[in-house]
Amino acid sequence: MPFRHQKVESRRLLLREISQRGPVPRIDLADRTGISRATVTSITAELLRGGLIEEVPRDSSGEETPRGRPRVDLRIAGRAHLIAGLKVSDVSISLVLMDFDGADVAHHEHAIAPHRYTPDALADEVHHGLARLAEKARCALTDISGVGVGLAGIVDAGNGLVYWSPSLDRRNVPFAAVLSDRLGIAAYVDNDANLVAMAELTFGIGKNHSDFIVITIESGVGMGMVLGGNLYRGTRGCGAEFGHTKVHLDGALCRCGQRGCLEAYVADYALVREAHSVGNVAQMAPTSKAVTAILAAARAGDPTARTVIERAGKMFALGLANLVNIFDPELVILAGEQMQFDHLYADAVIEQMRKSIVDIDKPAPDVVVHKWDTFMWARGGAAYALEFVQDTAVEALEDA
Amino acid sequence: MPFRHQKVESRRLLLREISQRGPVPRIDLADRTGISRATVTSITAELLRGGLIEEVPRDSSGEETPRGRPRVDLRIAGRAHLIAGLKVSDVSISLVLMDFDGADVAHHEHAIAPHRYTPDALADEVHHGLARLAEKARCALTDISGVGVGLAGIVDAGNGLVYWSPSLDRRNVPFAAVLSDRLGIAAYVDNDANLVAMAELTFGIGKNHSDFIVITIESGVGMGMVLGGNLYRGTRGCGAEFGHTKVHLDGALCRCGQRGCLEAYVADYALVREAHSVGNVAQMAPTSKAVTAILAAARAGDPTARTVIERAGKMFALGLANLVNIFDPELVILAGEQMQFDHLYADAVIEQMRKSIVDIDKPAPDVVVHKWDTFMWARGGAAYALEFVQDTAVEALEDA
Repeated sequence: MPFRHQKVESRRLLLREISQRGPVPRIDLADRTGISRATVTSITAELLRGGLIEEVPRDSSGEETPRGRPRVDLRIAGRAHLIAGLKVSDVSISLVLMDFDGADVAHHEHAIAPHRYTPDALADEVHHGLARLAEKARCALTDISGVGVGLAGIVDAGNGLVYWSPSLDRRNVPFAAVLSDRLGIAAYVDNDANLVAMAELTFGIGKNHSDFIVITIESGVGMGMVLGGNLYRGTRGCGAEFGHTKVHLDGALCRCGQRGCLEAYVADYALVREAHSVGNVAQMAPTSKAVTAILAAARAGDPTARTVIERAGKMFALGLANLVNIFDPELVILAGEQMQFDHLYADAVIEQMRKSIVDIDKPAPDVVVHKWDTFMWARGGAAYALEFVQDTAVEALEDA
Repeated sequence: MPFRHQKVESRRLLLREISQRGPVPRIDLADRTGISRATVTSITAELLRGGLIEEVPRDSSGEETPRGRPRVDLRIAGRAHLIAGLKVSDVSISLVLMDFDGADVAHHEHAIAPHRYTPDALADEVHHGLARLAEKARCALTDISGVGVGLAGIVDAGNGLVYWSPSLDRRNVPFAAVLSDRLGIAAYVDNDANLVAMAELTFGIGKNHSDFIVITIESGVGMGMVLGGNLYRGTRGCGAEFGHTKVHLDGALCRCGQRGCLEAYVADYALVREAHSVGNVAQMAPTSKAVTAILAAARAGDPTARTVIERAGKMFALGLANLVNIFDPELVILAGEQMQFDHLYADAVIEQMRKSIVDIDKPAPDVVVHKWDTFMWARGGAAYALEFVQDTAVEALEDA
């Protein structure tokens, strides 16, 4: 049994290494993982036989082995599994389908009505969206090996439990189980910002970093933390909460019911509330339209609009500086898709953050603005599910 | 070479396990570490031969092995090494001497003049203090295998580099090297609050926890974070900075030159400044005397003094809530030695913190107030040095 366990562990390690580095020569795998060359040879043979990886001729080198065979590298066999990722927002569910090698196969945007759903009703919407996604990819739902789902709110990912989400009408929903039952596919649930951090770690800027923070801004402010190469989730599964850290004692009222939360100063609704309170913008729906009007007014030199925008930037810089003081990360990634938050990603804000961190004779962490398309969240969901699908696949392999 | 490396690693693991659990039966070591019984037998034989551990009869069980020999457990051989720990404060250096099993052998308080020292002058003071400590323990300085030093300020512990400390007259001092050269003993330097976290992890309340935060309050506010059973130091070695996280935009001026730092609201000098600004207390030296006067006035019902103390408590609660939101730890330990900060450890403050964290249907982390004696910081220094002394000792062992 311990031997079997060790073998599965080595398969997992090698599969992950090939996934991150592939195409890669066998000899590099031994060097990088510390697994002996003989074991690498036998385990990669199992992975090849199981169809999880494949051999490819080495690019253009023309090198041959001493025995005259062409040199080959190993890479993930994309067709081995299909993985879906999706993110639920207030107006739609964005979905992607990925192959086992992380390549996009299809994507789909499924519109939903903006209200709170019962768990079953939301599972229905996910089901509809996934069915259409599968249709686009000309596959059956049952061809999908795993689904990763991102929700706004507070999620205990390890237990698939949604403590609270603006998308659900009740608290403490075992939503991973609800979805798995409905879909007949293994489902995994996490906070949406955590999944963006996962996407950065798996496919993005974070690929070569072990300690970084990802901040996402939509109507809320999200955070994902990668420490030592792993997503940090806290002990109750509700860590990495940034939007509701307090930046002002007894400050502005937040959607969460508390006062002085960062979100209550930087979110779209906070800007609109401020501007509206001095009669600077008419009450408009949707909020995004009102924000656009405030930003346009600020750019045109309107002093009130500028004041509103500037304070949001200063509060955001203060919150960021606190994170850097506490974590001292290598890198901070500001991930967003909407131009409407550009004022928070401005050089002046980053500079303000640098001035508010503890001053040592070493450069401050890099801050990178990473603009993704609409499907970034969904890709994070797929990246999260991919890990579980990899683990299940190596467990299921027959021994040589 | 890889074999030798693995062997040293197993020795290290077993020595640490015995250190934390001892006296412990051999068979438990195998179960707990996953190292095979045969290997446990051969490696503990090496540790016994090297004098790092010793056998002790099992307490009162009277059990015998099948061959009729009395059963024995293994524990650390206390006499194998002496380790010193010390903490530099503004008026003294506190020192402890510990044996290899973590038992106190001697302690000493060495008074110093309250000013900033050149690295050489501070190394001299440490030397004097250590010499007196050794004298009390009737040993020579050269009998000490390692010294762990805690300083206020910002320290890159891995490189023994002090970026900045109120005890030193310049920045970027390789103080571990300066000290090792002066003392002829391996020296290790870290931020003082990190060492309190280390002491909690090694000897204290944190012994059975893997994820906790320790907050220390003196004139500054310090923090140490233990994540996954290890001290978290950040990527530049300056993480876990709490006192200079910002709790107010463009707020009160801090000693560090920035505005709105937590310290600028809760430290002793902050209380005195506030009370003085409204004529509530006369300017007194030392600061601690003025703080005592303010606290006495608050207890006697003076409304201004109460306002001063209450705001400090609220700001402290806000800062704590931010940490809990970000980390979601199992446990928060408030570690202090001075009764003068009791108002920050008050139930009302903890309750305020609970109200400011994200609300989920699970209990908030435990908050424990741990009052230590003056030598708690120094014991943390010794705990830090102990790890290195253990590692050096297992490296130096001859192979069987």
